[in-house]
Amino acid sequence: MGTYSIGVDFGTLSGRAVLVETSSGKELASSVFSYPHAVMDRELPDGTKLGVDWALQHPQDYLDVFANTIPAVLKETGVKPEEVIGVGVDFTACTILPVKADSTPLCFLEEFKGEPNAYVKLWKHHAAQDKANLLNETARQTGQDWLGRYGGKISSEWLFPKVMQIVEESPEVYAAADYILEATDWVTWFLTGVQTRNSCTAGYKAIWNKRNGYPDTAFFKALDPRLEHVVEEKLGCPITPLGSRAGFLCEKAAALTGLCPGTAVAVGNVDAHVTMPAVGIDGPNKMLAIMGTSTCHILISREERNVPGMCGCVEDGVYPGFFGYEAGQSCVGDHFQWFIENCLPAHYEQDAKAQGKNIHVYLREKAEKLRPGESGLLALDWWNGNRSVLVDIDLSGLLIGCSLQTQPEEIYRALIEATAYGTRMIIETFRESGVPVEEFYASGGISQKDPMTMQIYADVLNLPIRIAGSTQGPALGSAIFGAVAAGKEKGGYDDIFTAAQKMGKLRDEIYRPIPENAVVYDKLYAEYRTLHDYFGRGENDVMKRLKAIKKSQSGREA
Amino acid sequence: MGTYSIGVDFGTLSGRAVLVETSSGKELASSVFSYPHAVMDRELPDGTKLGVDWALQHPQDYLDVFANTIPAVLKETGVKPEEVIGVGVDFTACTILPVKADSTPLCFLEEFKGEPNAYVKLWKHHAAQDKANLLNETARQTGQDWLGRYGGKISSEWLFPKVMQIVEESPEVYAAADYILEATDWVTWFLTGVQTRNSCTAGYKAIWNKRNGYPDTAFFKALDPRLEHVVEEKLGCPITPLGSRAGFLCEKAAALTGLCPGTAVAVGNVDAHVTMPAVGIDGPNKMLAIMGTSTCHILISREERNVPGMCGCVEDGVYPGFFGYEAGQSCVGDHFQWFIENCLPAHYEQDAKAQGKNIHVYLREKAEKLRPGESGLLALDWWNGNRSVLVDIDLSGLLIGCSLQTQPEEIYRALIEATAYGTRMIIETFRESGVPVEEFYASGGISQKDPMTMQIYADVLNLPIRIAGSTQGPALGSAIFGAVAAGKEKGGYDDIFTAAQKMGKLRDEIYRPIPENAVVYDKLYAEYRTLHDYFGRGENDVMKRLKAIKKSQSGREA
Repeated sequence: MGTYSIGVDFGTLSGRAVLVETSSGKELASSVFSYPHAVMDRELPDGTKLGVDWALQHPQDYLDVFANTIPAVLKETGVKPEEVIGVGVDFTACTILPVKADSTPLCFLEEFKGEPNAYVKLWKHHAAQDKANLLNETARQTGQDWLGRYGGKISSEWLFPKVMQIVEESPEVYAAADYILEATDWVTWFLTGVQTRNSCTAGYKAIWNKRNGYPDTAFFKALDPRLEHVVEEKLGCPITPLGSRAGFLCEKAAALTGLCPGTAVAVGNVDAHVTMPAVGIDGPNKMLAIMGTSTCHILISREERNVPGMCGCVEDGVYPGFFGYEAGQSCVGDHFQWFIENCLPAHYEQDAKAQGKNIHVYLREKAEKLRPGESGLLALDWWNGNRSVLVDIDLSGLLIGCSLQTQPEEIYRALIEATAYGTRMIIETFRESGVPVEEFYASGGISQKDPMTMQIYADVLNLPIRIAGSTQGPALGSAIFGAVAAGKEKGGYDDIFTAAQKMGKLRDEIYRPIPENAVVYDKLYAEYRTLHDYFGRGENDVMKRLKAIKKSQSGREA
Repeated sequence: MGTYSIGVDFGTLSGRAVLVETSSGKELASSVFSYPHAVMDRELPDGTKLGVDWALQHPQDYLDVFANTIPAVLKETGVKPEEVIGVGVDFTACTILPVKADSTPLCFLEEFKGEPNAYVKLWKHHAAQDKANLLNETARQTGQDWLGRYGGKISSEWLFPKVMQIVEESPEVYAAADYILEATDWVTWFLTGVQTRNSCTAGYKAIWNKRNGYPDTAFFKALDPRLEHVVEEKLGCPITPLGSRAGFLCEKAAALTGLCPGTAVAVGNVDAHVTMPAVGIDGPNKMLAIMGTSTCHILISREERNVPGMCGCVEDGVYPGFFGYEAGQSCVGDHFQWFIENCLPAHYEQDAKAQGKNIHVYLREKAEKLRPGESGLLALDWWNGNRSVLVDIDLSGLLIGCSLQTQPEEIYRALIEATAYGTRMIIETFRESGVPVEEFYASGGISQKDPMTMQIYADVLNLPIRIAGSTQGPALGSAIFGAVAAGKEKGGYDDIFTAAQKMGKLRDEIYRPIPENAVVYDKLYAEYRTLHDYFGRGENDVMKRLKAIKKSQSGREA
């Protein structure tokens, strides 16, 4: 009899289960289930219209993921339910919902079926920006010291702005909710029948700290008197460190999934953070970059430091016993896609078609022939603002060095290089703040599909880059946490570090810096950094002034 | 019997004659003749290969222009030769050739037919850059005070670098040449049979000054001992102010053109400068911008000032009795064309085609719907370096304010606006140097065909813009100078000022600043100026460093 664990990764549009051999990390089968309601950004199932920037989900879809994917991987592999020793889940975050004391989502209740605030607010629900503004302003005015841990700014995507929206727009939903919680904790609750809350979302998204807890009642009262006791009234559940067991599979969940009751279940996790063990990261100072439309950087350290512009520093937030750091670049693949859609001349598209090539591949073939610096171009990668380290959505993109000979592939490459400089800026900021970064790992679509970009990153960072060995890193990571929840005695592991070593996977090839390229990129990065600071740190706030003019001229007052 | 004059404009690829009524400036007919040899940039007629950056012409083509176009306009209008009272010519500059004492071009001689340096070096012949560098370096080292009149730098396009190339590469051509002169003076010599040299090209292109003459022999000796007496040996002819009569049509030229011997001929002129009277400019402080692939700005003033970054300040250089100033933007229409060729997405091109629209028109329709500042974009118009006021070819283009929502038409408009800011910078530099600019006139292709651009210029400059009434401004201007050469007694005019008033033409419509746009553009221009100075005046020389890296990385050492 073998031992296996299952990881379930809840993404933006679908959920995926992966069945993994606990001894080796080998992925035996995976199954994807697309959410029937997908993202609701125009209307509810009953036709109720949604406002601008809303993004909701239906929690039944998550249960349907369990019901469809877990039986599917069992069936495909022939693995017996009793051979599955642990289950772990990860989710997008901050993705929250209001529920009753028995975990029933309010939107399941007849009376709230037509109430948008009763549904799951997805991570990219952006309709609470005014609430976030108020929260930040109040935090600054009242001198909240936790603000520094979040780069000085709480995002509208996070928990409290979304809760503020509920209480303000739908006080009846707020009143009826016994809990408001992360979807990752809700599905874990479904699996175990017992509520737990994980330290990752609590720390990164809900301003919780292991030693100080949540902000105090006075702060919440200052926000809105109705929120004074929000923590006791709606978040009332202790926080459990990542790497712990949430409980055991309950009868109901066992019936739905076909697994055995009593199977160990890990505490809920987040899609980015959970990927750390999937690439075998077993200790501090090793940065993981999850590179897709945007990039998320995860790092653990023995050091607790206020690193400027990070998305949070959370004890137990990634691995137990370490300070977990998260940083981000708000526009990476999106950047390249913008270029393809808006700047690529017709004759390139025709030529690619004639050669039967994907346009990205075609463009990359041209761009990879260029030597570093050969185009004379340099960009600031701020097409979608800057997340880390400046935390400023009002910054904008810049391209310098254009000539009448400038070719499209040169601009394309300059945009890619700019995102690499942005990553280097994050790494240097960590180092300058006393948090070492010694190794670099990459997962996500770009790491798998774009060797040119990965070589550029290696050259710019002057670090070897190790690439995730699995294309389903989050699900694999969840399965690894599932194996830790089961424990060594059951055929799993007693700690995440050992589990990561045994079950995490890297590709054989490593992107290694090419010394002569690194020398040139050092020079270019120095120029990037000068411009970064000039435009980003207040010396010339032209970007903000241009944005203010833009807003007033387009009738959207700043 | 009416009175008429003929202007002949020698462009880069063809020559054009226009027959004009002297009382009204009415253009009765025009005729174009394309140069059979066009621009020779690969080989001579006998197959001799040319080097990189060479651009030659064949002087026989110019004579063929006279032979073809003047008879054609006479024939078309039925105007009798005796009704034509004057002829004027203008030319590209600096466009020079070596000739014998009887005006025969050396390249007409059998012995020099295969010698590139015996041909006409066209204005855009760029193979003498190393000579220009040496000349500038020598001028700086020997403290030549005339350098300030030319923005501190002599262009490789001008006379002496081209002469230096002749003496260095083909000393036998240099030795055989009795004169080296501008093509405009050579065709005028052909018409009159007597050599004259005009004050415009002498002043702007040959470092001549009305009071001090040319640089002294010591300077030329320092350049190259063989050039010590270049002025006496090769440029030996007095300088005649613009607006003067060069002489009268000789028998040979009369026979070739069908005009009467004895017809008055104006001194040679330059295509940009000669356009001033064509738009009716009759006095100082009225700037003319000739807007095409690049823009040339001409202005006359009572004031003699060293205006930073101008292409020259020449007494009698535009109109007699005034100081003529020339400024330039090295990339205007070229800028927009670069965008069309390199940045326009396929779906725009398809959409334009489906609507049966020229792509410029299609793009303009989108761009003109935008309000000033609405795109949030700002550009520095340095895709081809900066001519005035920074005189720096190592500067490069910049675009700032990009977002994931940025549309192609927004970038296109930002490039147009940037050239308008560049023009405003030139105007402000004149004003700050004590040279007033009170009115603004535009001629050239963009002024005629692009109302959106002209309105943007009016709004940015906050000046009404008057548009040339003729699409053949240089030829009309030459005809006006021809009428002045003839004099009032013959039915012409005694001075260029009156002639300009009577024969110059403007369109009825004037582009007037829209006050609410001007207010926004004031703000945007302030941002432009800050960036202009930051990147252009040494605060951050990133553009030069990027260009140096570019050169070294592309194997073209700086």
